[in-house]
Amino acid sequence: MPKNIYDDPDFFKNYAQLNRSIHGLEGAPEWPSLLELLPSLKNLNIADLGCGYGWFCRYVKEKGATQVMGIDVSEKMIFKAKTMTTNNAINYYIKDMEQLELQKSSFNLVYSSLTLHYIKNISELLKTIFNSLLPDGHFIFSVEHPIYTAAMQKTDWIINSNGQRSWPVNDYQREGSRIKSWLGKSVEKQHRTIGTYLNLLIQQGFTITHVEEWAPSDEQISKIPELADERERPMLLLVSTHR
Amino acid sequence: MPKNIYDDPDFFKNYAQLNRSIHGLEGAPEWPSLLELLPSLKNLNIADLGCGYGWFCRYVKEKGATQVMGIDVSEKMIFKAKTMTTNNAINYYIKDMEQLELQKSSFNLVYSSLTLHYIKNISELLKTIFNSLLPDGHFIFSVEHPIYTAAMQKTDWIINSNGQRSWPVNDYQREGSRIKSWLGKSVEKQHRTIGTYLNLLIQQGFTITHVEEWAPSDEQISKIPELADERERPMLLLVSTHR
Repeated sequence: MPKNIYDDPDFFKNYAQLNRSIHGLEGAPEWPSLLELLPSLKNLNIADLGCGYGWFCRYVKEKGATQVMGIDVSEKMIFKAKTMTTNNAINYYIKDMEQLELQKSSFNLVYSSLTLHYIKNISELLKTIFNSLLPDGHFIFSVEHPIYTAAMQKTDWIINSNGQRSWPVNDYQREGSRIKSWLGKSVEKQHRTIGTYLNLLIQQGFTITHVEEWAPSDEQISKIPELADERERPMLLLVSTHR
Repeated sequence: MPKNIYDDPDFFKNYAQLNRSIHGLEGAPEWPSLLELLPSLKNLNIADLGCGYGWFCRYVKEKGATQVMGIDVSEKMIFKAKTMTTNNAINYYIKDMEQLELQKSSFNLVYSSLTLHYIKNISELLKTIFNSLLPDGHFIFSVEHPIYTAAMQKTDWIINSNGQRSWPVNDYQREGSRIKSWLGKSVEKQHRTIGTYLNLLIQQGFTITHVEEWAPSDEQISKIPELADERERPMLLLVSTHR
């Protein structure tokens, strides 16, 4: 298994302090938007790629899914997910998504939250996901938006004399590895354009059904004022597809 | 007919100085990428929405199209297009795309280059285009990329102490009118996100087949060095769909 940052003890500890770690799905501001993309979950077989603590796995089981498979590269994540889960229709596996194998024609829904931007070998993974879906099966995912991942160097907001905050974009067309500082560590991510994500999906045979450059609602900003930055430039990309 | 900037004599004169006005399709650096998206043109009925001087109309006729309809809101553009065209299988019409009507089930290909970002009533136009297509008909278009159109205020490159050029993005999620200075005039454009363009297409029934955030090739940059900026942030979005 490759070294991964989520098994670094300090990183894992800092990750535990995030809102989305403490409060689960409700702690992720994009969750209401993802929820709108989900099909009815009753009697579905579901895989969650990059399941972390397993919040999504438990949610879909509660909503009527038949079987749920949670996959994560991090041993610590999967250990934590198992300690938080009692339902034995949910199974967790430590697996590297760079060389994932999934049983063909098995799932009604494959879901992946904020994981694909870590994956180098994305074409192969998309092929594996496509083949793992049952006819009319859904693949729904979120990734960091390329506007957010583009810059090769450390990036921060620029504030002009009128107080207007701008997000500096550069290196957008240079796809590939980015080393970014997060939670006190260097984290490697893969920058790719929206076009690349969508064209790779289309090439594998997926039909694109929704593309969302996520923005917070007025209500969310009134509760968490710092989310207002997300009006200036998107940080997250949500994509819904079906086989 | 509404007032439109292309009929302003000074603007029209300045527009005539652009590379893409002087050299036609070959003067537009994104043309090779658009060309790759086009189907075989033999025996097709084609509409070009925002045809300008009619370069595309004449190109597709030369490549074997049966009938070509060029539409533009600007009287001056259509007058110029007619003076440059001799083939009577090409017909030009002055029409406002905000309230365009097209015959149903008429075209194998509807094409639009750098025009849709002027249109407010885009849903209605997309519906009209969808209905005007024959089964399996294509709709292929380019618009200014939302990274380029987002800012409400005048925007320019920011250069940091290392010489890195960055394009400042703000107001990305605030869709709607933008007044930008171009060719010495104030021009009104409509900013909308990639997600909005794609979801509106999907809602009308289009299948998305290719999405390209256009970037120049090494060869193009070696010929026109200022195109290197387009590596830092995309300026153009190309989309290919079919009915």
